[in-house]
Amino acid sequence: MFTLQQIAETLGRPVEGDGTLRFARAAEPDAAGPDDLALAMSPAYGDALRAGQARAAILWDGADWKGFGLKGAVLVPRARLAMASITAALDPGPRLPEGVHPSAVVDASAALGPGARIGPFVTIGADVRIGANARIGAGCAIGDGVVIGDDALLQPRVVLCERVVIGDRFIAQPGVVIGGDGFSFVTPEESGVERARKTLGDQGDIREQAWTRIHSLGAVRIGDDVEIGANTTIDRGTVADTVIGRGTKIDNLVMIGHNNVVGEDCLFCSMVGVAGGCTIGDRVVLAGKVGVNDNITVGNDVVAGGGTKIFTRVAAGEVILGYPATKMDTNMAMYRALRRLPRLSEQVAELRKTVAGLVPGKRDE
Amino acid sequence: MFTLQQIAETLGRPVEGDGTLRFARAAEPDAAGPDDLALAMSPAYGDALRAGQARAAILWDGADWKGFGLKGAVLVPRARLAMASITAALDPGPRLPEGVHPSAVVDASAALGPGARIGPFVTIGADVRIGANARIGAGCAIGDGVVIGDDALLQPRVVLCERVVIGDRFIAQPGVVIGGDGFSFVTPEESGVERARKTLGDQGDIREQAWTRIHSLGAVRIGDDVEIGANTTIDRGTVADTVIGRGTKIDNLVMIGHNNVVGEDCLFCSMVGVAGGCTIGDRVVLAGKVGVNDNITVGNDVVAGGGTKIFTRVAAGEVILGYPATKMDTNMAMYRALRRLPRLSEQVAELRKTVAGLVPGKRDE
Amino acid sequence: MFTLQQIAETLGRPVEGDGTLRFARAAEPDAAGPDDLALAMSPAYGDALRAGQARAAILWDGADWKGFGLKGAVLVPRARLAMASITAALDPGPRLPEGVHPSAVVDASAALGPGARIGPFVTIGADVRIGANARIGAGCAIGDGVVIGDDALLQPRVVLCERVVIGDRFIAQPGVVIGGDGFSFVTPEESGVERARKTLGDQGDIREQAWTRIHSLGAVRIGDDVEIGANTTIDRGTVADTVIGRGTKIDNLVMIGHNNVVGEDCLFCSMVGVAGGCTIGDRVVLAGKVGVNDNITVGNDVVAGGGTKIFTRVAAGEVILGYPATKMDTNMAMYRALRRLPRLSEQVAELRKTVAGLVPGKRDE
Repeated sequence: MFTLQQIAETLGRPVEGDGTLRFARAAEPDAAGPDDLALAMSPAYGDALRAGQARAAILWDGADWKGFGLKGAVLVPRARLAMASITAALDPGPRLPEGVHPSAVVDASAALGPGARIGPFVTIGADVRIGANARIGAGCAIGDGVVIGDDALLQPRVVLCERVVIGDRFIAQPGVVIGGDGFSFVTPEESGVERARKTLGDQGDIREQAWTRIHSLGAVRIGDDVEIGANTTIDRGTVADTVIGRGTKIDNLVMIGHNNVVGEDCLFCSMVGVAGGCTIGDRVVLAGKVGVNDNITVGNDVVAGGGTKIFTRVAAGEVILGYPATKMDTNMAMYRALRRLPRLSEQVAELRKTVAGLVPGKRDE
Repeated sequence: MFTLQQIAETLGRPVEGDGTLRFARAAEPDAAGPDDLALAMSPAYGDALRAGQARAAILWDGADWKGFGLKGAVLVPRARLAMASITAALDPGPRLPEGVHPSAVVDASAALGPGARIGPFVTIGADVRIGANARIGAGCAIGDGVVIGDDALLQPRVVLCERVVIGDRFIAQPGVVIGGDGFSFVTPEESGVERARKTLGDQGDIREQAWTRIHSLGAVRIGDDVEIGANTTIDRGTVADTVIGRGTKIDNLVMIGHNNVVGEDCLFCSMVGVAGGCTIGDRVVLAGKVGVNDNITVGNDVVAGGGTKIFTRVAAGEVILGYPATKMDTNMAMYRALRRLPRLSEQVAELRKTVAGLVPGKRDE
Repeated sequence: MFTLQQIAETLGRPVEGDGTLRFARAAEPDAAGPDDLALAMSPAYGDALRAGQARAAILWDGADWKGFGLKGAVLVPRARLAMASITAALDPGPRLPEGVHPSAVVDASAALGPGARIGPFVTIGADVRIGANARIGAGCAIGDGVVIGDDALLQPRVVLCERVVIGDRFIAQPGVVIGGDGFSFVTPEESGVERARKTLGDQGDIREQAWTRIHSLGAVRIGDDVEIGANTTIDRGTVADTVIGRGTKIDNLVMIGHNNVVGEDCLFCSMVGVAGGCTIGDRVVLAGKVGVNDNITVGNDVVAGGGTKIFTRVAAGEVILGYPATKMDTNMAMYRALRRLPRLSEQVAELRKTVAGLVPGKRDE
């Protein structure tokens, strides 16, 4: 149970009305009962707030809280930022008993920090180091030589392969796989796909070819304050390590291939794929289903819209979209013109007829 | 072993010939041995049926079953619907011993329905309720407060996070993750990506920015008769729940982000991604690799072809295709015109030359 | 520890300089310490090699190894092929203790080959056969009747469902799911999506429809020397088996739907999706995020660039790109024309004005 006063302090804002109001959970404004804290941080939620039964709410700055019949409120200027504070305060987080579950298989050489909690059916390999207060959920598999910082949270069934190194305050959603082998194969002779890439379309004479494996000797290094979404995979490097910078957040079902170096404070949405050997700058935002070809450089502060496919270098600060990627406004101009293209084709056909009638030589025929 | 008579009854159709014929399994017509039931439900399979050794077959309506040398047959008008009945009759399903495997870690407060089967290395949290005859495969992790209806089948390694609620007859293929945290982050100041979205391309002055986490307090609610494919992920809501309606079927490697509300009887094929905060109607069919941007409304009965990327509201009943999505026939007209565009460009260049020669002022120069 | 002489023998090339030099690991040229073997197999790495401290290196053919101050070197003509040999020699591979871990649940009817290693929390079903020297990582689930060849490596948390059959030297990265049920549903009446596919856009009258499941009776058959990436899923067939040919390599987060028949020596990069019922030839290379619609035939030696969406048959040897797929050079010509389309539209508008002024009838108005 929380009081409105406590939430106001969390938000760094004054209480309006009765700060002693208590509630157990937050709720959408229309679904809120009398003991819920309604979240209605834009005027668009006004009707919904009236439809619900909340006695206290977090409202947009300047809202007439008494007009909504509330007993108390906190007004906030930036709704989503307030959401971060409120949800952090109200999130109980996953419950994991203290200590190491008796079913866990922990190598004698592994070092667990004070307060670390290890769930059922976890395996922890040789020479692993896990930081203070880390929570390792059911069925995680931690390979030899892995290092995890303090305050990590691994949800169930996360796999960290050998020698992966991760900073503090790491969060992995269920099913994450970090440190699988890179996808790297070579044919004894130059392959058709190598030739097609050089010539942009011609693979030359076709020959039988089989693939020889290039093993992955590198690892994965991940900075502090990184979060990885459910069933996302990050491959180890061939010789050097694959790197994810501090503060970067990665959504579900993302693929980060081998030897990529991803900067700090990036945001990669679901189903992003970064092929391999790329250098991605800091604060890069890749929307859902963006793809990056191998060995590409993407500068700092690039923003790529949903579904963008990046085949060539992107300069710092560009906002891009499309397949293949171009600047967003160029892409939208191209697309508007494409929508009118069937009509344009008709106009050209008419013009050709008209002009043929105007040409003297033609007219005389 | 089944008799042809039994299959005929399953299909609600009469037996042709010898209903006492017995077989252990169904087979493709050309691969069928004398003790297999051949499935050849369209005339296209006629030659394959002759090439095999089947003595009994399921055939298309009106087929000359004696002409294929068969001893017995059942003729069906709608092949795929017949497949549903036949395969259901012949599917042994995964085998799971009765009761709770001794290795499973089941919280004392969990309630298991009669006939529920719990496999090895399963964890079941506090206050979980699992319905009658549910089968929970090896290594599944069920978080605190989860509710699963009757007759559920969870294949191995499924993760259901805290407070997920699921109806009856649920099927989850291996590796499914339901209830991971939503991907929701905010910067203290307005971020470059927020500005780029408002302006469609201009992110304004670039500033350093780091991401603050918005925690997920909601859960996931799933109706009756839902099936989810291997390694698919469905995130919990921020405050309200993420919702999947009754009868909806979801394929492998699909991502359903936080706060989406998906209707009933939908069909989402593999690698579909629905970003977050969307409202998807009933009976919506999204083909493989379709993407839906965040906070989009898709009406009832929409059909989206493979790879479609949806950025704006889609009206009920529309059939759409493309990146960005347009009506399918518009998309195909645009594409046909695009294929002819290099030729069109040449025609315009010629026209410009011809017309320049016709303009009096130009001619006089 | 390895000697330079040993590496030279692995590569089948002569040693230059001191073959007795010893090192523990390979390293990028600029990061290499005095006890590392630097890998610098193209002149582009010359500066990096000078910046590092390596005393031995693998260099490109013709390199002036003494000029880089090295004590020894091996020169190789095809860098990536040399990488395969070197990395194979230096890869320690995952460590798994001999024998069957006491926590594993192995059915009494399962047959394990000599030297097979079974990790913690593994389940192995009835009538399973696992070949010699196979390594099954922590938490894998192997269903009834599965057959795995010799020298297999299953990383942690791999699921092989009932009756899957796999050849020798198989490698599965963590989280792979093979043999989940196919995604196959049917409506009692013809559905809107069936009609929309026939008419390319018109789904006719909209009716309520619910989905009936077609069960999957087939299995998955995988040849020798196949590798599958992390969290990839391959579904079982409906009646016949889904098939992956010998030597084919598949990356992370790929989806191979039911009833596909994939040829030999193919390379499918991350996030490729093959819907179902397709026939893919030998040596086909599908780059990242390629999609193949259902029931499509793709000929031998086809190369598809990143993001290509294949809706129609592809002839053997074609190099294709785009959404929808066309030959790569056609696609690039279309795309260049599209980039100039806004300018072309302006030119046509000007032409129309000019020509209107030239037409006598118009001029007289």
